[in-house]
Amino acid sequence: MNGAESLVATLMASGVDTVFANPGTSEMHFVAALDRAPEMRCILCLFEGGTSGAADGYYRMSGKVAATLLHLAPGFGNAFANLHNARKARSGVVNIMGEHASYHLAHESPLKGDTVGISQAVSHWTRVSADAVDVAGDGAAAVTAARAKGGQVATLILPANTAWEAAEGSAVAAAPPALRRPSGAQIAAAARALRLPGAALMVDGVALYTDVGQVAARIARATGCRLMGPFFAPRVRRGAGAVRMQRLVYEVDANLAIMADVTTLVLCGAGRPTAFFAYPGKPSLNEAPGTAVLELCGGDMDITWTLEALLSEVGGGALTAADFVDLDLPVLPTGGLTLDKVGAAIAHLMPEGAVVVNEAVTSGAPIAMATATARGHEWLVTMGGAIGAGLPTAVGAAVACPERKVICLSGDGSAMYTLQSLWTMAREGLDVTVVIFANHVYKILHGELAAVGATAGRNVARMFDMVEPRLDWVALAQGHGVAGVRCVTADAFVAAFGRAMVTPGPHLIAVEC
Amino acid sequence: MNGAESLVATLMASGVDTVFANPGTSEMHFVAALDRAPEMRCILCLFEGGTSGAADGYYRMSGKVAATLLHLAPGFGNAFANLHNARKARSGVVNIMGEHASYHLAHESPLKGDTVGISQAVSHWTRVSADAVDVAGDGAAAVTAARAKGGQVATLILPANTAWEAAEGSAVAAAPPALRRPSGAQIAAAARALRLPGAALMVDGVALYTDVGQVAARIARATGCRLMGPFFAPRVRRGAGAVRMQRLVYEVDANLAIMADVTTLVLCGAGRPTAFFAYPGKPSLNEAPGTAVLELCGGDMDITWTLEALLSEVGGGALTAADFVDLDLPVLPTGGLTLDKVGAAIAHLMPEGAVVVNEAVTSGAPIAMATATARGHEWLVTMGGAIGAGLPTAVGAAVACPERKVICLSGDGSAMYTLQSLWTMAREGLDVTVVIFANHVYKILHGELAAVGATAGRNVARMFDMVEPRLDWVALAQGHGVAGVRCVTADAFVAAFGRAMVTPGPHLIAVEC
Repeated sequence: MNGAESLVATLMASGVDTVFANPGTSEMHFVAALDRAPEMRCILCLFEGGTSGAADGYYRMSGKVAATLLHLAPGFGNAFANLHNARKARSGVVNIMGEHASYHLAHESPLKGDTVGISQAVSHWTRVSADAVDVAGDGAAAVTAARAKGGQVATLILPANTAWEAAEGSAVAAAPPALRRPSGAQIAAAARALRLPGAALMVDGVALYTDVGQVAARIARATGCRLMGPFFAPRVRRGAGAVRMQRLVYEVDANLAIMADVTTLVLCGAGRPTAFFAYPGKPSLNEAPGTAVLELCGGDMDITWTLEALLSEVGGGALTAADFVDLDLPVLPTGGLTLDKVGAAIAHLMPEGAVVVNEAVTSGAPIAMATATARGHEWLVTMGGAIGAGLPTAVGAAVACPERKVICLSGDGSAMYTLQSLWTMAREGLDVTVVIFANHVYKILHGELAAVGATAGRNVARMFDMVEPRLDWVALAQGHGVAGVRCVTADAFVAAFGRAMVTPGPHLIAVEC
Repeated sequence: MNGAESLVATLMASGVDTVFANPGTSEMHFVAALDRAPEMRCILCLFEGGTSGAADGYYRMSGKVAATLLHLAPGFGNAFANLHNARKARSGVVNIMGEHASYHLAHESPLKGDTVGISQAVSHWTRVSADAVDVAGDGAAAVTAARAKGGQVATLILPANTAWEAAEGSAVAAAPPALRRPSGAQIAAAARALRLPGAALMVDGVALYTDVGQVAARIARATGCRLMGPFFAPRVRRGAGAVRMQRLVYEVDANLAIMADVTTLVLCGAGRPTAFFAYPGKPSLNEAPGTAVLELCGGDMDITWTLEALLSEVGGGALTAADFVDLDLPVLPTGGLTLDKVGAAIAHLMPEGAVVVNEAVTSGAPIAMATATARGHEWLVTMGGAIGAGLPTAVGAAVACPERKVICLSGDGSAMYTLQSLWTMAREGLDVTVVIFANHVYKILHGELAAVGATAGRNVARMFDMVEPRLDWVALAQGHGVAGVRCVTADAFVAAFGRAMVTPGPHLIAVEC
């Protein structure tokens, strides 16, 4: 058994049985070891951003850590953006990054790069294996780290000689340290605060997609506080049967209005609401000046325990039907196509339990609005704001949930960052319906430019508008092995999306409206 | 004038008039400033790896520094791999990386990331502007740094508030410090060494693509030493009229054989020849044990001055026709297609002064062999070994040399990393002919796996083979707005490539053989 084999055995023994891979030469012994472990599922992505985004989506929908297999420094660089997104989503990921044999690093070979530096710029945990006999223990430590604190990015750097030299058996990841909990005094203080006029409880994490949300709603019933959620959340249960709560939005001014009469804010799983960007003359924080903010429980702490303790402290309120979203399906649209009609069609047609990955940027809001009362579903967004996560996240979600329909909403601009994921959908036969909003423009940038008070001239047009030529989405889909269709009427979209909902496997629908 | 405007004015005043851009919101004031400078050429890339690879190709063919415009940490991450390649090519690049307003960094917004950390992992020079009034000076310092030491990667991080706050005019980049030169004693010692039996002079940099190569050849004539070049070089003049020299190759064993009877190696512009990867039981260095190695002049030093001083020291030898490559064109192939026939067709048809960007990986060697005696041309390769550089480098080369035909040879695997560059070729009407070697496999990985003594099973097939489905290259080209054709016979390839050589603008030819 060599170091690479000890690592594969360790991953399997530790419950990591899926690898999103984009291998290179320095990982060849690890590849050979994976080949001798046919029970490990190896999923090829044709670009590293596909691997890290898929691992993010996989963790969010399964709660399980996947591994990525990445070539040394530049390969990790290609994975960086979606590792950033995974980090912000608190998704547990184990990256196995190849590295030159340690003695080879004395020389300036082409691929030599700062593997530790780039890893540390995004990983919570980084380790370089020093010896083949250490690799099993290092791999187990990486899995433990990835599972700790509600999910972390852990990177194990594997010098080639530690992969090919002799090792001794596997290790098993330890249970991660228990999640931290607030003190009894903090629980009592939060309970008191939530009874004040103008109090709000803002929750995140499991409270947004499991029945823990009902615990939060009962606290709100018992105390009379508002129940709120952030705009960006890794996973949210929506539609019929979901717990009603008030979510923040993207725009600073709208959030300031939403938060204007909140005088006490208790945070449980959620961070302090912050503007996506700073703008001249606008505040970074969303709460009104003077708001009392109690950071009761961070996203890396025990949210379930905290909410249950808080419920005990306040004495449980009872929920009624009014606390849950009712099913209310829009009628199927006809005629010319608008974003509202796309939303209506999706809301009408998508099945119970669908997983929606939304990276439609400016086109996404009408779809979110239309689907708010659709059949129960879950909603995933790009947590780190780095576009190019949508398609890979959909890959990971579909691998995690083969029995569920995955719907990926993407802007045309954002889809172009990691379009190679279409091929992985085709290769793996994943049940993903990709809807591309082909407006042929980075529309959000035009909006942000207007927000800073500038008008658009020639250079802006050259940098914001994806015209001359327009992308041909049907051809792009076909090129990757996915059937694609372009829709410019509501009837065509209803037909195409309806067909996709009842036909397993990948589909791409380009919407132009 | 705000900080962003002072930066644009500084870039223009310093001779930087081309920006390869993939902008985001945090750069909006810089975008607005670019919009007010219509004399700045802004070229949109739909993925950041396109910007950094294009800046690399642009510098190599023009000697001029271009700027990239990158979104904060994850956007820079997407550019990382081709910045790594640019670094290894000694290409001068100025990255302008956006950043949150400095006061906004106190809060955990989605896009907040380690901008300095990721920059320092690949840049020679990193600076964060601290104040709007500093931005002009910082920008000039970045350009100076990018031009120093024969070309460096310089990254200026621009917090949004330093872009939007008031500044005062522009600055001009200083001339970079003079290149270091070896001492007279070192020159004399090198001259003595080159007269020894078994001596070789290995050159790189300008000696490989300008008439400085003839200086090196005259030194070889005068001393009787062998004239050599490395395998990986940023820019090489090849074909008829090029100076003959012995180049190293990729394979370790072959290089060991080439170097076996070199007992004294003088390096001028070239680094110590190093194996691309380490392999069990094989050395990292290419020279025979006991070889005397004189590192006379690094790639960051004054190669031209050094070779001229060395020529004076040894007393100039005269060159004859035998020192130059003769034109010898293969006949046009017919019948079934092989890589040798693709090479013959390219060699026969490509025009004088063509620029060949080669990232064909395993398919490239037969093309290189066939074109060795073609009309005079230049040859660029991926210097950092990170695939995904070919198409972007071709973009940059074509922008730098609009009067020359650019031919981009790419593996199908490598092209998939940065395929978005096809769209930029179409948008800018670049005269690039892309030849995709569509063997539907990461063939080099199969070779490397065999080299470590492993056989391929199911997981290797799942990770190395791009089949089920096959990529459709004609559709992929069409999707990006480029006319594509698939060739499976020599006659078809001759027709398609011949047409591309006389028709300006982008073309894609997929070769399956």
